[in-house]
Amino acid sequence: MNFRMIKILPLFLGGILFSQHNADSVQMKQISDEILVNGTAYNNLYDLTKNIGARLSGSQAYEKAVDWALLKLKEAGADKVWKEEVMVPVWVRGTESLKIKTADGKWKPVNMLSLGNSQGTNGKDVEAEIIVVSNKNEFDALPREFVTGKIIFFDYVFDQRFINTGQAYGDAGMYRRSAASWAGKKGAKAVIVRSLSSAVDDVPHTGMMRYDADDTAKIPAVAIGPAGADELHKNLKNQKVFAKLNSNCRMAGEKLSYSVIGEITGHTNADVMVVSGHLDSWDVGEGAQDDGAGIVQSIEVLRAFKKLGLKNNHTLRVVCFANEENGVRGGNQYAENISKKNERHIIAIESDGGGFTPRGISMVMDDSKREEIRSWRKLFEPYGIHDFDLKYAGTDIEPMEALGVPLAGLVVDSQRYFDIHHSAEDTFDKVNRRELLLGATTMAQLLYLVDKNWK
Amino acid sequence: MNFRMIKILPLFLGGILFSQHNADSVQMKQISDEILVNGTAYNNLYDLTKNIGARLSGSQAYEKAVDWALLKLKEAGADKVWKEEVMVPVWVRGTESLKIKTADGKWKPVNMLSLGNSQGTNGKDVEAEIIVVSNKNEFDALPREFVTGKIIFFDYVFDQRFINTGQAYGDAGMYRRSAASWAGKKGAKAVIVRSLSSAVDDVPHTGMMRYDADDTAKIPAVAIGPAGADELHKNLKNQKVFAKLNSNCRMAGEKLSYSVIGEITGHTNADVMVVSGHLDSWDVGEGAQDDGAGIVQSIEVLRAFKKLGLKNNHTLRVVCFANEENGVRGGNQYAENISKKNERHIIAIESDGGGFTPRGISMVMDDSKREEIRSWRKLFEPYGIHDFDLKYAGTDIEPMEALGVPLAGLVVDSQRYFDIHHSAEDTFDKVNRRELLLGATTMAQLLYLVDKNWK
Repeated sequence: MNFRMIKILPLFLGGILFSQHNADSVQMKQISDEILVNGTAYNNLYDLTKNIGARLSGSQAYEKAVDWALLKLKEAGADKVWKEEVMVPVWVRGTESLKIKTADGKWKPVNMLSLGNSQGTNGKDVEAEIIVVSNKNEFDALPREFVTGKIIFFDYVFDQRFINTGQAYGDAGMYRRSAASWAGKKGAKAVIVRSLSSAVDDVPHTGMMRYDADDTAKIPAVAIGPAGADELHKNLKNQKVFAKLNSNCRMAGEKLSYSVIGEITGHTNADVMVVSGHLDSWDVGEGAQDDGAGIVQSIEVLRAFKKLGLKNNHTLRVVCFANEENGVRGGNQYAENISKKNERHIIAIESDGGGFTPRGISMVMDDSKREEIRSWRKLFEPYGIHDFDLKYAGTDIEPMEALGVPLAGLVVDSQRYFDIHHSAEDTFDKVNRRELLLGATTMAQLLYLVDKNWK
Repeated sequence: MNFRMIKILPLFLGGILFSQHNADSVQMKQISDEILVNGTAYNNLYDLTKNIGARLSGSQAYEKAVDWALLKLKEAGADKVWKEEVMVPVWVRGTESLKIKTADGKWKPVNMLSLGNSQGTNGKDVEAEIIVVSNKNEFDALPREFVTGKIIFFDYVFDQRFINTGQAYGDAGMYRRSAASWAGKKGAKAVIVRSLSSAVDDVPHTGMMRYDADDTAKIPAVAIGPAGADELHKNLKNQKVFAKLNSNCRMAGEKLSYSVIGEITGHTNADVMVVSGHLDSWDVGEGAQDDGAGIVQSIEVLRAFKKLGLKNNHTLRVVCFANEENGVRGGNQYAENISKKNERHIIAIESDGGGFTPRGISMVMDDSKREEIRSWRKLFEPYGIHDFDLKYAGTDIEPMEALGVPLAGLVVDSQRYFDIHHSAEDTFDKVNRRELLLGATTMAQLLYLVDKNWK
């Protein structure tokens, strides 16, 4: 190669690269324009949250949501829509109350929610002295005889110092998940946990807990709001405090339910690209950010492909998973089914961090694929997508990791999510139209590039 | 330099750089922890918005806000606080209404707001047929005799295709600013403009308009909400529509007012670093995001420096500017004063894009300083600060550009701002605690680095 060639080559290659980059960037802009101007995701979310609302897996509302998703996928232009059978656990909340008595002798009600999958008190009052611990070490240091017969209050504070609130949620997660099991093993009557909440209000947040297989006593677990936790902790510093818990929540067996699937069949290839969210929510609020947003965004991706006539080579499939919140049965069943059918998937994406402004793409895939997605960074930057470093993917698609499916997650601004997550405050008004549509845009753009470049 | 040295040197320099980087990153984390855990900005904003609320420049409420800012700066730990005199224009809204009559003959009220600085109808009904244009070209094509005596409806749509909504705002800005002047010159009776709003609701947004110096007729200008604009435009497609406008808004001379300033005097250097927002707001809503957020964030920066004992070399000065919204008198006066006093400023930062999640730092400064700030990118990345490309700064600090002061702006997520900006919806509940505090964190961190590295 002579000197002249060396000087020319970069320009020449640059020309090719630029030209390809340019064609892709034009197509990505068309996707963005279509979704931001004509997107139906926001209206669909209004419909889902206001006309169905909370839709706990196993509930009648969830079954309505199944019919709703079938309809919306058809409206969006899916070639095929169907329901995928899955057995889900049924948990019912029933009535519940928690009262606190301090030195003044009066019982005062506290904002509370039983944790999902928890046992209740069978409608009887369970009354006991409250003992507070700030973390697991403090609990572990308590002698069994001191714990026995008490109600243990785990007041582990949501750590505001994390910039990504998902890390603070992960940091505090074991208290919601396991405190009842720890305390039950030492003979406690019930546990109260501080809600996993970034807010400074008094809203309680539910979420899944679990008993260990060897738990002989399955004691009730309830969450209280941050302000209630602050007040209770303060009271406990200088006096004995008693709690009276009464709840009817219980597991009620299993039930046949469904994930909902719709697709535009691949024009040249039967391999599948999944874009997804979970259709179930907790039984309080409206399941707007968690995960109505991911559902309507996934449907929006399909709608935009159809409307723009993008003619996907591979099958573009929207999966609305059942039972993410209290069992992940939908995600596990889907992975099992595609494994049995030997149905090859070239990528699966999930949006389950809320419909907030997208900031990046997280990846669980081999390094060569990861680097290829990272090489598209310049194409994504005009859309504010800059974070390609995180290595996780959604709960529902994780079971596909073992099958070798490359997984991606929509990374969104995390600041507001845990203010409302799993609470009565997760309602439609917390969702911003443009933020929601931009999340759909990012996923559609990524699938456009994957469809074109991956075999 | 021998080969061995070449191999060693990068490691050695890397060690020095890493060590410096590390010390800075530890200090920046302390700033972040302090603000996210102990920050008072959110409570201060509650106080400002709920106990004072809207505070139009020249109003009594604004004067209350002056006293409030003096107090809050003292509470935050300022060594000195003072008021800086500035003459501001006084504009009063008074009562106002707009009614529309379609073919059914009934007058129907429309959600509306007179634009700031606009003349009203002096309390008289101004009634005329409405003519709609979608943009300036369409208006320019209308013959004068067709415009004369009519009310012109400028229905230029806020362009949802921009990813940064600030660009859409800029794109549509001339209609709010100048439509009355254009139409007045052709003999129109009044103008109606579609609000500069990214929302899909029917909330009208006000904001400053101006008449040209040669305008003989200063005709009234009002804004209507996006849904009202859609409906009016639709009606105008197949029938004559009449408007009846009645308003009392007017300019009412000038008044002595104040910007509010507080500082921690430099420990080794009298040169100044400014962090700022504007204390005035429009007269509707609560001025929460615009720009209560910038004010409480700036105070928070000073509080964090004091609380952490950072011992700023240069003077750290908080400026709460008067009259950004309808005159920029505070900003102009401040620049004039520092020029007269020959008071050297090494940087001025403003937060006036709302207290949303920070994403970057915009800069108006010479290339060497810009590159130095860009060289700190790695230090900022853990905080999600990644955009160092934008070249603008806040309206209030812009007058300092001519004095050679390096200017910076806090770049924040822009998706929600123009849903509520200049409207009755700009209320405290639209502000998220963590997003607000993170913006203060970014500015405090930048000032820490500037203070340490710039002479």
